[in-house]
Order: sequence, then structure tokens, then C-alpha cells
Amino acid sequence: MIYGAIEAGGTKWVCAKGTGPDDLRENVVFSTTTPEETIRRAIAFFNENGAEPVAAVGVGSFGPVELRVSSPSWGSITNTPKPGWQNTNIIGLLEEGIDVPLAFDTDVNAAAIAEHRWGAARGLSTFYYITVGTGIGAGGMVNDQLMHGLVHPEFGHIPVPHDRDSDPFPGVCPFHGDCLEGLASGEALRARWGKQGELITDDRAWALEADYLAIGIVSAIFALSPQRIVIGGGVMKQPSLLPRIHARVLELVAGYIDIDEQAGGIDRYIVAPVLGDRAGVLGAIELARACALSHV
Amino acid sequence: MIYGAIEAGGTKWVCAKGTGPDDLRENVVFSTTTPEETIRRAIAFFNENGAEPVAAVGVGSFGPVELRVSSPSWGSITNTPKPGWQNTNIIGLLEEGIDVPLAFDTDVNAAAIAEHRWGAARGLSTFYYITVGTGIGAGGMVNDQLMHGLVHPEFGHIPVPHDRDSDPFPGVCPFHGDCLEGLASGEALRARWGKQGELITDDRAWALEADYLAIGIVSAIFALSPQRIVIGGGVMKQPSLLPRIHARVLELVAGYIDIDEQAGGIDRYIVAPVLGDRAGVLGAIELARACALSHV
Repeated sequence: MIYGAIEAGGTKWVCAKGTGPDDLRENVVFSTTTPEETIRRAIAFFNENGAEPVAAVGVGSFGPVELRVSSPSWGSITNTPKPGWQNTNIIGLLEEGIDVPLAFDTDVNAAAIAEHRWGAARGLSTFYYITVGTGIGAGGMVNDQLMHGLVHPEFGHIPVPHDRDSDPFPGVCPFHGDCLEGLASGEALRARWGKQGELITDDRAWALEADYLAIGIVSAIFALSPQRIVIGGGVMKQPSLLPRIHARVLELVAGYIDIDEQAGGIDRYIVAPVLGDRAGVLGAIELARACALSHV
Repeated sequence: MIYGAIEAGGTKWVCAKGTGPDDLRENVVFSTTTPEETIRRAIAFFNENGAEPVAAVGVGSFGPVELRVSSPSWGSITNTPKPGWQNTNIIGLLEEGIDVPLAFDTDVNAAAIAEHRWGAARGLSTFYYITVGTGIGAGGMVNDQLMHGLVHPEFGHIPVPHDRDSDPFPGVCPFHGDCLEGLASGEALRARWGKQGELITDDRAWALEADYLAIGIVSAIFALSPQRIVIGGGVMKQPSLLPRIHARVLELVAGYIDIDEQAGGIDRYIVAPVLGDRAGVLGAIELARACALSHV
């Protein structure tokens, strides 16, 4: 049996079929336009003439989303700022054209479950997956299950220490100003330094970025005690960033947890994802597999 | 069948037998002296002549503790500052005199599982339990399982914004200075205001205390998305504190999550525990029950 995957992003959607990293058979990418048109294209992908049938389709979606299965709007995007997409019931609309079981989770949880199955979190029961891109998000697993709760983690919005004397930048979060995302997201980098992250060469920029991300990571370490932190996303492509974060996290933990003894060293504790751009689609396939198994 | 419970605190140990809040049959309290003497008294309680046998004994312990079942030191207290107790293998020593299965977790996770079974977290799958006493700790459940990971949550040590202009107090944490515990624990209150929390009447003290606790809670909300937060401990006995925290959390969340819609209102979202001083013992009984079931 093969599975279907939809990586439902705010900029593009990726649809695929397969069973894992060595078996992704078909793949289509299209821009995120209106909900109607975008969802119609996804349905068409799975219903093409002669298309191989899938046992289930997993959707990893941009958010915020409604994950409570008990809610009538389960499978919806809720209060997104993206025009036209507020309160779009993605699963409801997909169900009109796809007649296999559908699984639904956040894009970050999809990437997390993929890294758990095939990547940097293999064999762990509790880990946290952070993505630092335009915004900052997180997902992960606790005791081998994806993190679900009131909504889903909104890690980007945690409060962080911000010394306005040494760093007067007010932050870009429209809700909180200088929350973690407000100070350290790709959008914050652009606003603070006047150019895209990949064009920033000023050493101070990356030292400051590592400072804030390390503070966020230390909050996650102490609040959850994950066995590992996987951190990816576009901003993390700056090569100096992860080593700087390693050094800063050790300083901030200040020996309270013996990361060498407990986790085998900081560079085994805070790691880059290994599945790259395919994590979202692969995670959606894994969501579909779990869903199909639960429907047998 | 009845179950045994040990609430292993740094100041006192409580041993009990029973099945739940309406059935706590025997109870003994003694001071925490040396590990040998303290553990001998616990063993004696369960081995008294004519004592009713228990199916299993649960232990909720002060920490930090080793919870990884794969570790040879599972069931130990690790790097506690408490003299004589460093690297004490509580479970190993108890096993020498108690021949029923033993369960082991943190004191906070024990209280959390008791509130889940009989108290303020009934019916929830994901919640966070915070205790604000001499120190600040947390535990909880995600997807119906207690939070375990690299170690266990060490919530007191999360970094928090600290404006040294308006609040020059440096904090009391020997590791981090002005982490949450350093600024807002009972010990911090005492050091900052020169008297025990229950004697502090200055309104500014409780406004500041609510500020820091609210920041910590908002970090937990965004990092984990719990369905509810249960917050207790000696410091929370100040009656104005919980309402102040409610107000401050709403200000800090700033509408990013609709707590009325998602959680039925802030006073249903952040609540006091209901089991009071019995939560630790009751949680240990619940740990024992789960352990006995898994040994059938």
C-alpha cells in the first residue's frame, strides 16, 4: 500500500505519494492561491486518470489549525493572517473529493514525525522540533506521541529577556512585539538589519540571533526536558548559527543539567534535521500511514 | 487490592496505604534524616506485623531524580544540594525491604497524576502542573502520559525577562541568578522582602510575583499548549495571587490565543489544585496502581 501526502504551506502546496524517503513516486508543487483553487488541485492530483490509489492521505498544514478531533472545525485553518484562508476547513473540503481516510496536523508536527521515523529523532520518545524561518514554530513528541493540547505549540511567542539598552530593536510580532519570533525570526532579521538573512554578514547579527534562539531553546529544555532538540528552517542555514547556539545554551544552562552525561554532548543534543525540504511531505506520508493503520 | 504510597520530600516523608481520596487507611509522617534511617522507617511501615499487604508501592520523590528506566541508577536522587542524599538510589534501597513492585516519579508528577485522576485535571489529556513553594517545579501529562524526557521538567529554571531598572533584585538561583525560580520562588520572596511570603502584605510584592509567574506560565502555554494549567504550592496560598496571574496572562497572551473560546475562560484555564496536601500521597497511590496493573 502507498500513502498520499499534502504539505499545505502558506506559499506553496506539495502533493506526493509513496511510502518513505526511498519511495516518493509522484510529486507536484503549486502555489497557494485561493482555498477553492488550491484544494481543487490537490484533489485532482489524487484523482488523476490511472493514478495509483492511496490508503490514506496525510496533511501537514500551515496554521494555526484546529487539531481537536472533537471539534466540528477539526482540520481547519483558524485565525491565519493569510487573506482568504481564515477558518478554511481544509479537511472538510478535501473530503468532498478524496474518499480515503485523511490525517491532519501542523506542518511542524509533520516534519517532526518524519524526523522521528527517518531522521534526527529516530529512537527517541520525547523531542522538540523547532523551525526558524519567516516565523518560528515548534512541534514534537512526548512519550512517542505528537504534541497536541489546547491548540498546538506556538513556541515563537514565548517571552524572552530583551535588554533594550544593548538591543533597542522593538521586535516585529504584531501581538507581542519582542517575543522570540518578534526578535529572532527571519522576518525580524530582515527588519532589524535591512536585508534578508542570507545576505547578512555582520558577525553581531549572528551572535545576537544565537543569543535569542538559545534563550528560547533553554526555555524548552527546562519546561519539557526533551531528549533532543532538532532545529531547522531557512534561518538555520547560516553555518555559524548552530555552533554559536551550542555554546550559548551551555552557558545558559550553567551546569544545572549535565548535557554531556545526560545527552552525550551538546552537539548530539541540539541537532539539525536530516530530511531537509522533504520533511514536510514525508511527515504527511507518516501521518497517512498511522491513519490508515488506525482505520484497518 | 490496596496500594502503598511514599511521598519522599526533602523535609518529611509521608507513607500511606489505600486506593484513593476516600480510602486512605493508614498514614505515617516522619522527618527526612539520613537516607538509611529514612528509608528504613518507610520499609518498616510496609512490613509492620499484621499490616495489610499492598499490591505495589508508588514513590513521588524530591529531585532531581533519574527517571530513565534504562539507566542503572533509575530511581535515584541525583545532584540534590541536600546533604547526604546525592546519588541515593531510593528504589534500590527500598527494594531490599519491600517485595512488591515499586513505581517512581517526581513529587510534582505524582501530584499531577493525582489531580488528573481525582482533581483539577480530570478528563484532560495534556496539562501542566506547576508548584510554587521554596522552589518552583512543574510536571504534567501530554497525551495522557506523564512528562518524561531527558530528565524531567525543571520549569523553575526557565529564563524570564527581568528589567533590572525597575527590579534590581538579582535573584537567588545559585545556577542562573534571575531565572523564574531565582525571582519568584518562596525563597526569592523571602530574600527580596526580608520575610516569609505569608507575612508579606505589600501590594507591590504580589503584583511583581504575579508578573513573573505569569511570564513563566505564558512560556509554558506557548511551548506546550496545555489544555489547562494547575498551579499550587505554598506561595499560591496568597489569595490575591491567582486573580492577578489571570489578568497578567491575558495581557501577555494579547489575544494570540482566544482563551475564552478555546478553554472556556481564564479562570477555567489556570486553576488551583483541589487535592491540597494530599496530592503527593494520592499521586503515589496512583503510580502504584498503574505499576501493579502493568505487572499483572
